[in-house]
Amino acid sequence: MMSPAVGCKIRNVPTLLTCKLPVHLSTSVSRLLPPCFLPLCALRVSSSPGDFRPLHRHSREEQNIAIYPHIEILSHSYSILTLFLVQKTGGTQLKLLISFPNHGQALLKPMKQSRDTETDVNLFYFSDFERHNAEISAFHLDRLLGFNRIPPVVGRLMNVTADIREKTTDHKVSRTFFTSPAGNVCFYGQCEYYCSTEHPVCGRPHLLEVSLAAILPDLSLAPRRSWRSPWRRSYSRTKLAQWEKNPNYCDSVKQTPPYSQGTRLVDLIDMAVLDFLMSNMDRHHYETFEKFGNETFLLHLDNGRAFGRHSQDEPSILAPLQQCCRIRRSTLLRLRLLALPDFRLSDVMRESLAQDPLADAAPLLSEAHLSALDRRLAAVLQVVHTCQEKHTDVIHDDLDRYDQDSLTDRNTKQ
Amino acid sequence: MMSPAVGCKIRNVPTLLTCKLPVHLSTSVSRLLPPCFLPLCALRVSSSPGDFRPLHRHSREEQNIAIYPHIEILSHSYSILTLFLVQKTGGTQLKLLISFPNHGQALLKPMKQSRDTETDVNLFYFSDFERHNAEISAFHLDRLLGFNRIPPVVGRLMNVTADIREKTTDHKVSRTFFTSPAGNVCFYGQCEYYCSTEHPVCGRPHLLEVSLAAILPDLSLAPRRSWRSPWRRSYSRTKLAQWEKNPNYCDSVKQTPPYSQGTRLVDLIDMAVLDFLMSNMDRHHYETFEKFGNETFLLHLDNGRAFGRHSQDEPSILAPLQQCCRIRRSTLLRLRLLALPDFRLSDVMRESLAQDPLADAAPLLSEAHLSALDRRLAAVLQVVHTCQEKHTDVIHDDLDRYDQDSLTDRNTKQ
Repeated sequence: MMSPAVGCKIRNVPTLLTCKLPVHLSTSVSRLLPPCFLPLCALRVSSSPGDFRPLHRHSREEQNIAIYPHIEILSHSYSILTLFLVQKTGGTQLKLLISFPNHGQALLKPMKQSRDTETDVNLFYFSDFERHNAEISAFHLDRLLGFNRIPPVVGRLMNVTADIREKTTDHKVSRTFFTSPAGNVCFYGQCEYYCSTEHPVCGRPHLLEVSLAAILPDLSLAPRRSWRSPWRRSYSRTKLAQWEKNPNYCDSVKQTPPYSQGTRLVDLIDMAVLDFLMSNMDRHHYETFEKFGNETFLLHLDNGRAFGRHSQDEPSILAPLQQCCRIRRSTLLRLRLLALPDFRLSDVMRESLAQDPLADAAPLLSEAHLSALDRRLAAVLQVVHTCQEKHTDVIHDDLDRYDQDSLTDRNTKQ
Repeated sequence: MMSPAVGCKIRNVPTLLTCKLPVHLSTSVSRLLPPCFLPLCALRVSSSPGDFRPLHRHSREEQNIAIYPHIEILSHSYSILTLFLVQKTGGTQLKLLISFPNHGQALLKPMKQSRDTETDVNLFYFSDFERHNAEISAFHLDRLLGFNRIPPVVGRLMNVTADIREKTTDHKVSRTFFTSPAGNVCFYGQCEYYCSTEHPVCGRPHLLEVSLAAILPDLSLAPRRSWRSPWRRSYSRTKLAQWEKNPNYCDSVKQTPPYSQGTRLVDLIDMAVLDFLMSNMDRHHYETFEKFGNETFLLHLDNGRAFGRHSQDEPSILAPLQQCCRIRRSTLLRLRLLALPDFRLSDVMRESLAQDPLADAAPLLSEAHLSALDRRLAAVLQVVHTCQEKHTDVIHDDLDRYDQDSLTDRNTKQ
């Protein structure tokens, strides 16, 4: 077993958090990612998209490794090498597809509002702005929870003129550039929401904070399936979804494939825990790789509407946990660990986020947001506790095989 | 001559500020308006629109009185008597036309952002939100400057449901009502900018701050002429207006009717002073009553984009003064008075605004905005000073006739 990385401030990491898998990390990537905890272990780095090789193995953890082939292109040292750039279609808000000289690509979301801005209480989840720092923070939180389901996201300072205006080949983007009254270079692209002079993306005067997310392998190489979440919201100002009206909603979900067998239901509950912690109400779909069939891990893409409000929580996001009363043992252990004073979630998030290049400009999450994480974590544990008082089958024990595998590994090495 | 109102905190008001005209004010109106200074003197109140009688007299001041026949409908005691309400056409942002049981009407602009929100530095003047408190504050400032060119505006707390939703006969408005995630009653109407779920007008949960501006007499009774300001901005993200490119621009304006004779040019410069003080860049047009011909006072309608930014000034708004180097003597005397410690503009504005019903909720202008007024006033006086160093014809002496009239009045009464 690997011991925690040298220089890691949080020591005495329990067995659950140590690494089980071999790691091949370049120096640049290790600068990018949290130095402690499992996240580092679950990455295998390669230098070009061609290196993507779907792994037809049984373990969810092993499949999971295969989805991050391009992480190297996101590293700090590549920060000025934009090859070209176009607007990404789909979705309702502006995002760009940036291409690098090594044929790697990343999904760019620009900073649109100051980090301390709280989402207006009168705005619906489907009208909220997307936040570059939410994408970055979601990636770190997902790793700290041990899920590893969000492709790597890193922050970067870009030059709006040199890296975007002069590199874009997309007329829909290039025709929207202008210089603002404050002398900043701005643009807004073309999209359904917030693509107008009234909602510009602006440098200061040229420098712009962005998030860059690793692009998944092309759909022709690795087709994905998009699943509508059973706990999807109504996306209406007036209608309620079924799960909001029926407290026994989970009974029917439990009987419906693919939730009726395997780990899909507890995967979904993991996702609800992640989303509740970061207050993301916009999880309408999740994805899986088709090649792995139904017995596979989930992908949590598109987290830009998380971390919008720190001053209040949204208990309805926890409905899958609260209504089904099921949770993975490994997830619960991780949550309990992160509730301990020595491993407090806010502390490890602060440390993890400090590794992102943009942390030099300002902390990726304000203290109010970090503190909300601790408050929400306690709320999750309280829901589990309430479940355990009423039911005996709350814990889905996923660690039996893990412990057995670990023993086998150890025996083989001995 | 009248002495200042009883209970007025600012005493020893110099001659310039005392009242020359008879005043007929109801108790409710006196609660609404500043108790000190000229503003109170320049109002004649009547109870219904039918009382409007254009005054065919020579003096600009006397004409000016005639434009405010409906002020009583705005008073505090009428606050719950909405008869019906429709969306006002024209303009780019949401405004409503509210009708009262006595057939009076007012133009309603709702609060859309918190009072402390500063306009984003990257937003153009033509994209800025309209602010209800800017409409109210502009009215008070205009009175304190002695211009009396803005029809009365008063703030009011309205019930979105009882006073608007249940009273509107306008489908364009009624179909946009909804309850926000925070449980507030919201609507957005139909307009060019900011009329969408993303930019709702919301009560808390029902109460909404609005500004109500006295509606001018119907155009069939008192037709008005709209004049394009010679110092109008380009309303383009890239183009500059002529006056921005040509420092001698005023020479050509001075030779063009109606600016080539009478007081129109100094009227325009008064307007520039008002707009600079409140940082209003959106003065594309002004209006006059046709019946008074060219020798008449100006109307400064639509001040919702003033008071957007307190942390910086916009010197270009002063271009008419700076380029023409002309100013009314009465205006200059008023400005100098308001720069004295005992009559500081910020102090008299604070006191004046405190009379508005909405001041009970929070000051209409933050201290930062009030303090900006003093800073900008000093800047105006500096521009005049610089003009006087270069030219001998800076002062347009409009007080000769005034003094003579006063003497005549006094002689008649004696």
